[in-house]
Amino acid sequence: MRITLALLLFFSLNAWGEADRRLVEDLVAANRILAHEGVLAEGWGHVSVRLSKDRFLISQAVAPEMVQAADLVELDLAGNPVDGKARDLYSERFIHAEIYRVRPDVMSVVHTHAPPVVPFADSKVPLRPMYARSAFIGLGVPVFDIREAIGETDLLIRTPAIGAALARALGDKPAVLMRGHGATVVGPSIQRTVSRSIFLAMNASLQQNAIALGGPVTYLSPEETRLVEEREGHGLKRAWEAWKRRAMAPGKS
Amino acid sequence: MRITLALLLFFSLNAWGEADRRLVEDLVAANRILAHEGVLAEGWGHVSVRLSKDRFLISQAVAPEMVQAADLVELDLAGNPVDGKARDLYSERFIHAEIYRVRPDVMSVVHTHAPPVVPFADSKVPLRPMYARSAFIGLGVPVFDIREAIGETDLLIRTPAIGAALARALGDKPAVLMRGHGATVVGPSIQRTVSRSIFLAMNASLQQNAIALGGPVTYLSPEETRLVEEREGHGLKRAWEAWKRRAMAPGKS
Amino acid sequence: MRITLALLLFFSLNAWGEADRRLVEDLVAANRILAHEGVLAEGWGHVSVRLSKDRFLISQAVAPEMVQAADLVELDLAGNPVDGKARDLYSERFIHAEIYRVRPDVMSVVHTHAPPVVPFADSKVPLRPMYARSAFIGLGVPVFDIREAIGETDLLIRTPAIGAALARALGDKPAVLMRGHGATVVGPSIQRTVSRSIFLAMNASLQQNAIALGGPVTYLSPEETRLVEEREGHGLKRAWEAWKRRAMAPGKS
Amino acid sequence: MRITLALLLFFSLNAWGEADRRLVEDLVAANRILAHEGVLAEGWGHVSVRLSKDRFLISQAVAPEMVQAADLVELDLAGNPVDGKARDLYSERFIHAEIYRVRPDVMSVVHTHAPPVVPFADSKVPLRPMYARSAFIGLGVPVFDIREAIGETDLLIRTPAIGAALARALGDKPAVLMRGHGATVVGPSIQRTVSRSIFLAMNASLQQNAIALGGPVTYLSPEETRLVEEREGHGLKRAWEAWKRRAMAPGKS
Repeated sequence: MRITLALLLFFSLNAWGEADRRLVEDLVAANRILAHEGVLAEGWGHVSVRLSKDRFLISQAVAPEMVQAADLVELDLAGNPVDGKARDLYSERFIHAEIYRVRPDVMSVVHTHAPPVVPFADSKVPLRPMYARSAFIGLGVPVFDIREAIGETDLLIRTPAIGAALARALGDKPAVLMRGHGATVVGPSIQRTVSRSIFLAMNASLQQNAIALGGPVTYLSPEETRLVEEREGHGLKRAWEAWKRRAMAPGKS
Repeated sequence: MRITLALLLFFSLNAWGEADRRLVEDLVAANRILAHEGVLAEGWGHVSVRLSKDRFLISQAVAPEMVQAADLVELDLAGNPVDGKARDLYSERFIHAEIYRVRPDVMSVVHTHAPPVVPFADSKVPLRPMYARSAFIGLGVPVFDIREAIGETDLLIRTPAIGAALARALGDKPAVLMRGHGATVVGPSIQRTVSRSIFLAMNASLQQNAIALGGPVTYLSPEETRLVEEREGHGLKRAWEAWKRRAMAPGKS
Repeated sequence: MRITLALLLFFSLNAWGEADRRLVEDLVAANRILAHEGVLAEGWGHVSVRLSKDRFLISQAVAPEMVQAADLVELDLAGNPVDGKARDLYSERFIHAEIYRVRPDVMSVVHTHAPPVVPFADSKVPLRPMYARSAFIGLGVPVFDIREAIGETDLLIRTPAIGAALARALGDKPAVLMRGHGATVVGPSIQRTVSRSIFLAMNASLQQNAIALGGPVTYLSPEETRLVEEREGHGLKRAWEAWKRRAMAPGKS
Repeated sequence: MRITLALLLFFSLNAWGEADRRLVEDLVAANRILAHEGVLAEGWGHVSVRLSKDRFLISQAVAPEMVQAADLVELDLAGNPVDGKARDLYSERFIHAEIYRVRPDVMSVVHTHAPPVVPFADSKVPLRPMYARSAFIGLGVPVFDIREAIGETDLLIRTPAIGAALARALGDKPAVLMRGHGATVVGPSIQRTVSRSIFLAMNASLQQNAIALGGPVTYLSPEETRLVEEREGHGLKRAWEAWKRRAMAPGKS
């Protein structure tokens, strides 16, 4: 299995420019990590990485825990494969396309239905930063209610117009909760976006429990949030290696 | 182990008509998937698939995580094996028989004691749809209180009469909670019934947490429910492959 | 590892009379099952089986997940090894001895610190039966507060006198919660006692969640409890086989 | 993999004095145990052991689940490697250094972000001892609010001055919660510190649930705490062997 994977990776990489090979490897790892850490395990979702101003890389329609390099497709901002070949694509790829269009700072996007996050997406109780790992929540995590923005739908972000509405709700923030659905998380690198996705869900669990204790809760101050964010992913390399090792261990692939 | 299973499957399939072989495979997979995803893992339960107007396929009395093709039995709507051979059968097979009798649209039935569902079965707080994955809950999930319907019992659906009372409580809905017991879920295919069972339990967990946050909760609107259900299992093939891969992985069988 | 275990089992069995060999096998399985199902996994505890009016079988002081046939010791009701050999024994073996002394109907005893049970042991909110699997709770589960019975202690049941006080609190019931400690469960066979222990913890989780929903909760009626208990472990053989398979699977032993 | 580990251990041990070899083995085990038991698994953290009045042993900046003997470094109380070689070190090593400086009784320190603990660190609801396993909490677990002590920061204990402030908040207690961060736990041996860390998190979960039941909760009395602590780690050897076996099992290393 691992040999097969390595071969697939080798041949896939040959199809890519030197500069993008690392992104291919990282995006496969990101799919496996997010599946293993519970962010893309229940009800799935997807993760992408930006290749250029108007191109991004994402898997074809495969469960993240099964994604291999050969599944990755380069899409334009209209959500079409650059190589013109027909494939089964995620119907919600417009989440990614429309955010890349209006957020030049964003290098990676994760769309998730992580169970700890959904209760906050459906509640009027705002998500707030519980600890340093999830300080980015202090930058603001708005809620996108598709019914208020678009009207009655099947809740899928299945057109550029709905994707654009979601991107407007996200604004300049690091994440947006989606009522009746889940959340979308962005960041300046695939590693930070993966980390934000994992700790968005963790923060939701922690805040859920803190609220249940019944006493007053002290969240991070705006200045604490700012100072943590300035560190730009302190300790992230160590975390990435550990997550990757867990997700890619023999018996997992 | 996998070779043994494959051989068993091969010989079992020979006993079935061409058209039913796929159902045998799917029903074995459904047992393993539901065990692995936590729906038929605690306190067990069972899953069946309809073969014809008055026949259905179900395992003999074996824990779902252990079910193999050779365990499957064809029952009539009186709950008797069609081949007339004596076996140890689930005492609650009348849940399946009586629902197939009155619901021609139902192709599969799951009876579960999934832990997240039981608190709602015992509570007056109704289950409501939290997100698109479990939109079918918006079609209505009644509660069957066996004591109100039948009187004092040992809670088992152990006779056709009690099964018929449960089927009446289910009505034309996709699922029914059972007070002091669990739930029964139905659907137009085995894949959708399995999916509904998994997301019934997930929705219960999500709603439990949303309620605990203490603020107002926004559930799916009736129109959102209708529009999601119209998609008839969007993304289900991808989900089924991933669930099957998890449940049937080497070391699991 | 499995060969070693089989050999150990073989030699150990030779030391026992024909009638007791099955109990040795069952007690090893019970240790592994209770560890695997989370009842004897956190903070440990122990399980015993009665051999005669004034003898019982229990492991020497080993974590339940590691117990093998060679670890089993025959104790008298004073808590001493019948063979007179010195061993490291559980300091709380008097829980077992004192219950066997006054409850001739009891064939097996489990002492547990299962996490879902402890909150109820420390709370004034009584445990009540949520569903058929844990109907026995309707027979009554008293709380033993060692401080009220004995005074200030280190909470261990480390003497016959404290064990006798616990047995008095248990009375003729199937289980007793222990404030600041955990619970002790008894039954008419090792299989039913193991099952009761697993579903005591499950019921505690379910009731915890039902209470958190905030609405009224309907528990089993006394008559429902009586009718379920009359079935004397309906479906238990199937459950035991599945639990054993999970706990004894290759890679677990 | 296990052979590699054994070889690495062998060569590493040669670099240490006879008396310290056991500490090397124990510290590698402590890293793996705390990762496996969920104390150093999410967001990581670190564990150290004292070597002398002004030296302690800790891993270089590696995720605890991956720590091997070759990763261990001897630091002085200024947080510098005694051998003068440059390495990537935990930026929060001053937690350890400053506590060893003022607490001669402390032989080991664990810094954790264990999820059950964080809600209590951010809440005004005090952690209190639920059962004998976590009786040490009755000795007092203060909360360190870095903003009150130091002002606005990125929450890291990244200087000796902040470490000293944390050590002052800890005082003579067995653990200190850290607002917006996690907790730090100390003890008279590495085994007891590991055990306290595991049961600090367990107690937090248990208390969370006991509070959610809504009725009055009875915590351990001061005298019960004192009597349990007098036992100095009763049953700890059995626990350590079981934890080690779980964490070091083939497939885990």
